[in-house]
Amino acid sequence: MRLRKVKNALETVNSHPEIVIPNPEEHRGKWNELFKNNNPIYLEIGMGKGKFITEHAKRNKDINYIGLEIAESVLVRAVEKLIEQPLDNLLLIHADAFLINNIFEKGEISKIFLNFSDPWPKSRHAKRRLTCNTILRNYCTILPIEGSIEMKTDNRKLFEYSLQEFVKFGLPIENLSLNLHEDKEDIITTEYEDKFVAKGNVIYFVEVKNNGK
Amino acid sequence: MRLRKVKNALETVNSHPEIVIPNPEEHRGKWNELFKNNNPIYLEIGMGKGKFITEHAKRNKDINYIGLEIAESVLVRAVEKLIEQPLDNLLLIHADAFLINNIFEKGEISKIFLNFSDPWPKSRHAKRRLTCNTILRNYCTILPIEGSIEMKTDNRKLFEYSLQEFVKFGLPIENLSLNLHEDKEDIITTEYEDKFVAKGNVIYFVEVKNNGK
Repeated sequence: MRLRKVKNALETVNSHPEIVIPNPEEHRGKWNELFKNNNPIYLEIGMGKGKFITEHAKRNKDINYIGLEIAESVLVRAVEKLIEQPLDNLLLIHADAFLINNIFEKGEISKIFLNFSDPWPKSRHAKRRLTCNTILRNYCTILPIEGSIEMKTDNRKLFEYSLQEFVKFGLPIENLSLNLHEDKEDIITTEYEDKFVAKGNVIYFVEVKNNGK
Repeated sequence: MRLRKVKNALETVNSHPEIVIPNPEEHRGKWNELFKNNNPIYLEIGMGKGKFITEHAKRNKDINYIGLEIAESVLVRAVEKLIEQPLDNLLLIHADAFLINNIFEKGEISKIFLNFSDPWPKSRHAKRRLTCNTILRNYCTILPIEGSIEMKTDNRKLFEYSLQEFVKFGLPIENLSLNLHEDKEDIITTEYEDKFVAKGNVIYFVEVKNNGK
């Protein structure tokens, strides 16, 4: 995705430590203390402007949500919304996805969402894709056994690549749809998803489970 | 698929034992004797009117092909074409796919093609699908290790089901395309495929390998 530069985005992000947790590594293994309960934690990696995770957090009060995003120019939009409408069960992190093992303890995250991740279409960039072998290993460390990864995208090549990576890694497929919006109603969408669906793009969906292999 | 009844189809099929091999069980483990060489044998299960396998046989003289079809009303069309244009490296079988273990010896078939198989959409009919667990076990018996299964279909539900069955069975994915005709040129098509592509349907493709598990 191409991002517009947003003026003062980083300043806004950094000036709301109650929403965007500074030094997230310091909370490794202790995220439930920040939420002040022992509910399961779901993590969206690359949460963008936050529509998906905010809606999840509103609907499911017995689940804690963490949104992780590297780009402050979109993250700031989620922060602005949370300043207006605070949510007890949603925290944000401004960090690189490849650092999640420094941020979360083994088994600390019950579910990971990957929505419309950057496809990195060139094969020399394959190692940056959020479903490459290296990062799958990290996901399976922070997920408990039976914890799951849910992915959706409209990018066919990324989806084909990801399915093959999941299978190579030995992660069992729990759910699969090659046309999510034809199969399901009442879908919590992302900003991108709304645009792509309006254009008539097919949305692919898969859920895989950590089997502890 | 709905089949038109063809007059005298069975008579035509049965009166050409040089093309449609009678009592195929008797040749188990000895198919190469019928072809009079030791070339690898590729099998299409549900070959229909035979466009796909006939074209393969014409292009690849160093491979032997066997087409299997239960419905004589379509099989007869392939027989008629082979009467006109005989092909040394193509034989047909009029039999049920679920009997392949009686017809072929362990490792006797190097590759299996499943093209536009009947989707059997009702879940109570799942066991009739040509990618159900039971028949995958049979495929992996007649294939050598590293032998592969290539599947294509325009039926999304059948494809989702099949991918999941392959993965559950532990068969590694070698190739995957969620839009074959966008990815590849010079595709050898089936009669159905031509119709579906003309209608604008997406064709799904996957190749999985027998890893001897």
